[in-house]
Amino acid sequence: MEIEVKFRVDFEEIERKLKSLGAKLAQVEEQEDLYFSLPSNELLRIRRIRNLGKSYLTYKLIKDPGRNEEFDEIEVEVSSFEKTREILKRLGFREDVLIKKHRLVYKLNDVTFELSNVENIGSFLDIEVISDSPDEAKKKIWALAEKLGLTEKDVEPRLYTELIKESH
Amino acid sequence: MEIEVKFRVDFEEIERKLKSLGAKLAQVEEQEDLYFSLPSNELLRIRRIRNLGKSYLTYKLIKDPGRNEEFDEIEVEVSSFEKTREILKRLGFREDVLIKKHRLVYKLNDVTFELSNVENIGSFLDIEVISDSPDEAKKKIWALAEKLGLTEKDVEPRLYTELIKESH
Repeated sequence: MEIEVKFRVDFEEIERKLKSLGAKLAQVEEQEDLYFSLPSNELLRIRRIRNLGKSYLTYKLIKDPGRNEEFDEIEVEVSSFEKTREILKRLGFREDVLIKKHRLVYKLNDVTFELSNVENIGSFLDIEVISDSPDEAKKKIWALAEKLGLTEKDVEPRLYTELIKESH
Repeated sequence: MEIEVKFRVDFEEIERKLKSLGAKLAQVEEQEDLYFSLPSNELLRIRRIRNLGKSYLTYKLIKDPGRNEEFDEIEVEVSSFEKTREILKRLGFREDVLIKKHRLVYKLNDVTFELSNVENIGSFLDIEVISDSPDEAKKKIWALAEKLGLTEKDVEPRLYTELIKESH
């Protein structure tokens, strides 16, 4: 399972702190995420990473709706963003929102830090661990969050899809 | 648009004739096609080509239901057959039939000959042309079919999905 906690952050400040923690920059991504309408505890997305020329089809089941920290995720790489979009439209799925992010991916051991500047909604840090034990994963995430000076009040429980709709 | 006519054939005889026509063997494929239930004029399929380690997600709209010679096809390569299968199942699609084929793909100019031995249902030749003009494409297909000694009585209008169901 994918366990992640999202924090609202100052991009430059958090990047400095990540580096001083010893996290290594693994990837720079210019993402375009196209979400399709599904029941509220499910997500269906095509992600294009423009600078890498790659696209992914992703299904997520939200295991803890409202908190949005625990996800059952299935993802495949696809050879074409536009053709995948066309297939989903033909199958009856309706496009919901498009979200554009400039994202830096940092890694420290088995923890992934996704530091994103999201068009129209601000900067966020997702701290992510893949684990079958949400409790242990969250302990690990919170130990690192504290080292970055982040607290419960910095948590953003809303999904990016919710934030972008509320920004309109 | 994809225009194709399917004939019931003798595999070895047609392969000899294809070679003497000058068609070149382009690919050998061990295919597993998993079809999902959709309305009858649409097809949704994941194809695994075992010997090449490749998988494809394909949507087809049948433009001439019953004849099944004209298709609007959209296809993407996917990085995992099993994960794509899981995503479609999560999205509510129901698995319909699995079709296994040993296929030789021959090419002659812009015409593709798919000579297949299909598990449980026999041998077939699909002659395929990509064209915006179904009439011209079919003229081209029939000129070649005649050279291979194939006539209207050899045509198999049923889809592989229909043939496999009728074989049970």
